[in-house]
Amino acid sequence: MDPNLALGTLDEFVQVSEPWFRQHLKALVEQRTVSPGAVDDRAIREGAAAACEIFRTAGATAELVESRGTPAVLARFTHPKAKTKVLVYNHLDVQPADPEGWRQRDPFAFEVEPHATRGFLYRGRGSTDDKGPALCALRAASWAVDEGLPIDITFLWETEEEIGSPHFPEIVAARREMLASDCVIVSDTIWPTDTQPAVSAGLRGSLHAILRLKTGGKDVHSGLAGGVARNPLRELCMLATAIDTAAFWHQGVTEASAEEIASYGAAGFDPEYYLQSFDLQKVQTRVPLEMMLRLWTRPTFEIHGLVGGYAGPGTKTIVPHAGELKVSFRLVPDQDAHTVGRALLDFVHAYNPDVEVEIGGSLEPYRATLDGPFHDAIVEALRQTTGRDPVTVREGGSIGAVPVLARELRAPVHFLPLSLPDHGYHAVNEYFDWRQAKVGIEAFARVFAALAGR
Amino acid sequence: MDPNLALGTLDEFVQVSEPWFRQHLKALVEQRTVSPGAVDDRAIREGAAAACEIFRTAGATAELVESRGTPAVLARFTHPKAKTKVLVYNHLDVQPADPEGWRQRDPFAFEVEPHATRGFLYRGRGSTDDKGPALCALRAASWAVDEGLPIDITFLWETEEEIGSPHFPEIVAARREMLASDCVIVSDTIWPTDTQPAVSAGLRGSLHAILRLKTGGKDVHSGLAGGVARNPLRELCMLATAIDTAAFWHQGVTEASAEEIASYGAAGFDPEYYLQSFDLQKVQTRVPLEMMLRLWTRPTFEIHGLVGGYAGPGTKTIVPHAGELKVSFRLVPDQDAHTVGRALLDFVHAYNPDVEVEIGGSLEPYRATLDGPFHDAIVEALRQTTGRDPVTVREGGSIGAVPVLARELRAPVHFLPLSLPDHGYHAVNEYFDWRQAKVGIEAFARVFAALAGR
Repeated sequence: MDPNLALGTLDEFVQVSEPWFRQHLKALVEQRTVSPGAVDDRAIREGAAAACEIFRTAGATAELVESRGTPAVLARFTHPKAKTKVLVYNHLDVQPADPEGWRQRDPFAFEVEPHATRGFLYRGRGSTDDKGPALCALRAASWAVDEGLPIDITFLWETEEEIGSPHFPEIVAARREMLASDCVIVSDTIWPTDTQPAVSAGLRGSLHAILRLKTGGKDVHSGLAGGVARNPLRELCMLATAIDTAAFWHQGVTEASAEEIASYGAAGFDPEYYLQSFDLQKVQTRVPLEMMLRLWTRPTFEIHGLVGGYAGPGTKTIVPHAGELKVSFRLVPDQDAHTVGRALLDFVHAYNPDVEVEIGGSLEPYRATLDGPFHDAIVEALRQTTGRDPVTVREGGSIGAVPVLARELRAPVHFLPLSLPDHGYHAVNEYFDWRQAKVGIEAFARVFAALAGR
Repeated sequence: MDPNLALGTLDEFVQVSEPWFRQHLKALVEQRTVSPGAVDDRAIREGAAAACEIFRTAGATAELVESRGTPAVLARFTHPKAKTKVLVYNHLDVQPADPEGWRQRDPFAFEVEPHATRGFLYRGRGSTDDKGPALCALRAASWAVDEGLPIDITFLWETEEEIGSPHFPEIVAARREMLASDCVIVSDTIWPTDTQPAVSAGLRGSLHAILRLKTGGKDVHSGLAGGVARNPLRELCMLATAIDTAAFWHQGVTEASAEEIASYGAAGFDPEYYLQSFDLQKVQTRVPLEMMLRLWTRPTFEIHGLVGGYAGPGTKTIVPHAGELKVSFRLVPDQDAHTVGRALLDFVHAYNPDVEVEIGGSLEPYRATLDGPFHDAIVEALRQTTGRDPVTVREGGSIGAVPVLARELRAPVHFLPLSLPDHGYHAVNEYFDWRQAKVGIEAFARVFAALAGR
């Protein structure tokens, strides 16, 4: 495609898309599609049905693909002389949202706010993670269809991403032929700053576990029993400390290449913007490169909660009878979640055989291909759309579907990030914005054009 | 006193006391005197007023002694030719009680149940800790008055024992002259088994603290911030582990004498009865002597709760932004709570300067005098009452008032334990029993007689 020639129509198409984008983002955000298990799975089904309707109105075929969990939306725009088949993955489910943190407003009430540099802010749970980016790709596909581009574009919007995609392999297996593609594009990652476009070189994986210890039938008086009673919270704290310094969850890490690290250095990563976005006050490092290496290339061990004993005001001098330590690891390429899970079981069993380990979900880390025609098309599209060279970064989070798609479809998964750190993934007062939506529609359109040979 | 002569009247007096004991224990248990700060301080005041009425009906003078906290009950039986002045300390306040643990019955509904070996079980919060034992001493004083024994008996029933007696020094200071006594007797300790009488050689002290760490303004996504964000729960677990193995809270311990340890060996301590009483399933030791040494003569460090992060079902992969670790130490003679508190501040500051330490209440440990006429009178009274030689043990718990009375009144504090491990101090379904009440009335009566020179 001659960029100067296409820019006229595409630019105009993008500009006039705001009402469409706003209307459909409102429709999706107001569907309370909190991931299954937390609130009400019917809302997920209603949201998925609404998404099907949006696809059909845009001229796509659309269906719900069922699993033992909640369904995914599968939609397709096909062309009789398609030169390429591309699969775009997004997710419809969102993190739970407590209205309290949202300044008493309903997290699912969509609100639009004019903004000096971003055009509009679109507020509401799921606006940036992942409904806004999902609609960018759909809108770009409509442009590709209008232009008659010879390309098949398939969309797969799952509804269990935020809980680790437990049934996603079933969904892929059920529609393997329809999903078969030359490449997969995922937009559910973020830029390193609010002005620096990027492609993602990889994702961290994760492994969740709950460690339980019960030593008695009831909480007891710490004077009358302390010294004989075994305190589960004490032992779980000691276990957590031992895990923290253990080697097993560092095994299998492949260091980032010198070339990749050099790209991090060019990412313009702004520590102050980053720390402010996440409201971090005391941190492990403020050195930009060290921050990026820690976020993207190193495994972590986190304690999410220690349940048991007394959590009210003041102190109650009891020895608790049971405790539950909620932990998770983030894993990096080329660690294997199953191997780390086995090592965790062995470690805990050796350290404190009375502790029961429940391994929760795990997500494999993913390393993206950083060359080839699909990669080049994405980089070029972002460059032309933003006027800036995209940098190579990684994603600290995990997307369970990505390694599944790569493995099951034997297709490279590439990233076209559209969200910004300030948008607030999983946080209160999440938003998306029109400037990033424009980038998304235009960049996806340019990728589709390039893959169609235009 | 010639024991054979007195036994007739005293034994009869004790036997006919059951209706009186039951009636007044019911009256006191049904006063919901949960320690101040937890439920409703008015219940404490009503309970204290009811206690005054019981004393007055028994012929004592009685008044409420006010403090900045809740009042204590001060009551006196005086004799114009008193040879000895004795102060009996008990407490009216009780631990909070959640009806759920009490099999849906109201913990403050008094219930009587016939029992094969104990005569009757008296069920209800506070029945054994400390209202039942308090009434034993009062009933014995009535006998002493009836007998015209030349002795002054003063009762001090405080209402803040379960929260560490924060205003007790004020109360003692306000009535120092009326409280001045030759000795103080405290019955708020327990026997090592359900048939082995004992005197207590000492109490553990305690020191409470809350350790707080805040590293950010909100919980954040563990993928997007994990590796840079500092996890307060992780750091508090590590801090707890470091404290656990630190030396500072072991300093100042005086080992029990060989003679005292020999007495422990004769105590008939029954590990299975003990473990069953507290429903302990996994313990630090099952060796009887080691259990006693740990419970009575060694300091402990306990974690009561770690607040922060996510405590609901499953896992939520956030890095928490704040955490609060609730801990306490039990201290033993001759440790000093103030010194240990200073050492804790220094240790935490050196280990993790971002952690804020709030030192809560502290109670000094206490070592009782194990000779002299008061000690001998108690031992002899228990021997004659039960037919068994009392053993010397210690108390693992703490009574804040004891070191205050010893220091402020310059009088020895002796123990005349009446409760049993199975009675359930602080636990659900607490009870007292008529067999122990009989022991209490008779033993106190014998002590009063001995101190009156009879």
